Amino acid sequence: MLENKNQNKTSLAQLGEFGLINHITQNFPVQQKSTLKGIGDDAAVLDFKSKNVVVSTDLLVEGVHFDLSYMPLKHLGYKAVVVNLSDICAMNARPTQITVSIAVSNRFPLEAIEELYEGIRLACNSYKVDLIGGDTTSSTTGLLISVTALGVVKKEEIVYRSGAKENDLLVVTGDIGSAYMGLQVLEREKQVFLVNPNNQPDLEEYSYIIERQLKPEARTDIKELLEKLDVKPTAMIDVSDGISSEILHICKASNTGCNLYEEKLPLDPQFINVCEEFNLDSTTIAINGGEDYELLFTISMNDFEKIKANPHLTVIGHITAENEGTHLITRENTKLPLKARGWNALTE
Amino acid sequence: MLENKNQNKTSLAQLGEFGLINHITQNFPVQQKSTLKGIGDDAAVLDFKSKNVVVSTDLLVEGVHFDLSYMPLKHLGYKAVVVNLSDICAMNARPTQITVSIAVSNRFPLEAIEELYEGIRLACNSYKVDLIGGDTTSSTTGLLISVTALGVVKKEEIVYRSGAKENDLLVVTGDIGSAYMGLQVLEREKQVFLVNPNNQPDLEEYSYIIERQLKPEARTDIKELLEKLDVKPTAMIDVSDGISSEILHICKASNTGCNLYEEKLPLDPQFINVCEEFNLDSTTIAINGGEDYELLFTISMNDFEKIKANPHLTVIGHITAENEGTHLITRENTKLPLKARGWNALTE
Repeated sequence: MLENKNQNKTSLAQLGEFGLINHITQNFPVQQKSTLKGIGDDAAVLDFKSKNVVVSTDLLVEGVHFDLSYMPLKHLGYKAVVVNLSDICAMNARPTQITVSIAVSNRFPLEAIEELYEGIRLACNSYKVDLIGGDTTSSTTGLLISVTALGVVKKEEIVYRSGAKENDLLVVTGDIGSAYMGLQVLEREKQVFLVNPNNQPDLEEYSYIIERQLKPEARTDIKELLEKLDVKPTAMIDVSDGISSEILHICKASNTGCNLYEEKLPLDPQFINVCEEFNLDSTTIAINGGEDYELLFTISMNDFEKIKANPHLTVIGHITAENEGTHLITRENTKLPLKARGWNALTE
Repeated sequence: MLENKNQNKTSLAQLGEFGLINHITQNFPVQQKSTLKGIGDDAAVLDFKSKNVVVSTDLLVEGVHFDLSYMPLKHLGYKAVVVNLSDICAMNARPTQITVSIAVSNRFPLEAIEELYEGIRLACNSYKVDLIGGDTTSSTTGLLISVTALGVVKKEEIVYRSGAKENDLLVVTGDIGSAYMGLQVLEREKQVFLVNPNNQPDLEEYSYIIERQLKPEARTDIKELLEKLDVKPTAMIDVSDGISSEILHICKASNTGCNLYEEKLPLDPQFINVCEEFNLDSTTIAINGGEDYELLFTISMNDFEKIKANPHLTVIGHITAENEGTHLITRENTKLPLKARGWNALTE
């Protein structure tokens, strides 16, 4: 699909590295006051005044993290930015800048790279973050994207994974599991397409879960929401590998246990329907499926009244003493050990 | 050489992503006051007080930027850090933190990754920078390393590429061209080895140029040196692609021309000998060969007395008006147009 067979397309070798950088970065206006100098020198220059700076980085590899047969390049660019901004949000910080490096094989024409950067530009625009640097190089095989995100936060606002206390409530934003089931639908359609390329899929009834997979959003709104509600989380993490894995990270870092309640999990009706269609247990998928990019956090029980009516926030459990262990409490009130079966990039 | 044939070696899949991160980052103590939180949360947290922050990033791809048949993994790790610190130095800033992401195929056993991180650790230790984050993932083919470096600088100390003025002197640190010829020697030895694997190369007489290729250093010392000499460069860049390319970057960003003098180029005797041995023109190599990671900068002519006796600094030309063009003045006093024939990662 991406083979450069069309002789009208522009080859990357023709343009060269500096030409490519100039070309793809021309539509990236600076939007943050803290960006003194973006692309164009040996390094970007930033002025965060006396605020703290948070830094996070992610590497996305074709064939490991994404499949271009159903992931449009524009969506891929958007998602590559979002997953990094999500990490910044998980520190209770505000994302401000990103760098994006790509390694790309010669089978990609310039027009493909433009699509990718159009998605990156849309994300920068939507989240008001500046693209301040990067590197472009060839690769011997597929496409690889490395994004580093920076954000700012006042020191007293930072939320680490390690601050959860016994009796704190476990809260998640939005709903979970849908991104994973979106991927299952896309994988199925790919197999159908391979058998019969004329088969046009009707994905209407899967629109929500597919959007959750192809165009996730970072919860930059939650910091402001919690400030309005006058709630500061005691611990926070974003949901990239699945909430079971993320809860265990919080418990390990905070030296606590937890009880997670199956009946409390916020699930979208479309997600539940598709789990039934695939004969999959919705709870297993909801707690182990990754890539929702929601925020998972703990708050003091005293703050419950402040958040209980909020449609964005769901209390799904509570923190216990470390020696009580980490558990999932089923609808039948059975206590099961909570285990991380989330995604692992090294065992695929 | 790196195939995981030895069953005693530890596979990456056995260890898993979090296990690998924990394992390889355990020997990285925090050395910078500005690092409040390094590895272990969604993002690192940094406090630069009111100083400006500079950020640079580079992507190194096996088969494009390095060849593991003559690049030991420890050296590769060291070099991957150094090339990024060099960019920070080129802003007249002080490097403070790095993130390192790697994509690695399963043919690499854990022990290979340990070697790589041992080089990264040596560089962190030598330059007193903190490893504050990263990502590890599998790749479908070779090894890929993405490094982002951060540094601090007072606003009034920053040196951009764009500040060169007519009559400014063009200065380079150290000597140039050797890293490129080191690579030529290594490439030749590889060919010899492929023909006869029992042939043990004697590289004694090439030790300096090979070290320049395999273990370059970032000129973090130059900022301090120039402060002692009471000289602030008007423009600065580091020598990664070759000085002809770098000089043209400064001239373009500063809207100036330049005259570069062949007879002034600082060349190591070993470099000159090896150029003769390879029947290559030393000037062509010196101005177009990359990876020296020296600093190239311009200073006001009034500062000439302050730097002229310094063994680290060589005046190699001067800045002219833009309409005079960019030239190389040969030993025979011929004026040749200066062209960038430096390395281009996309045309290889």
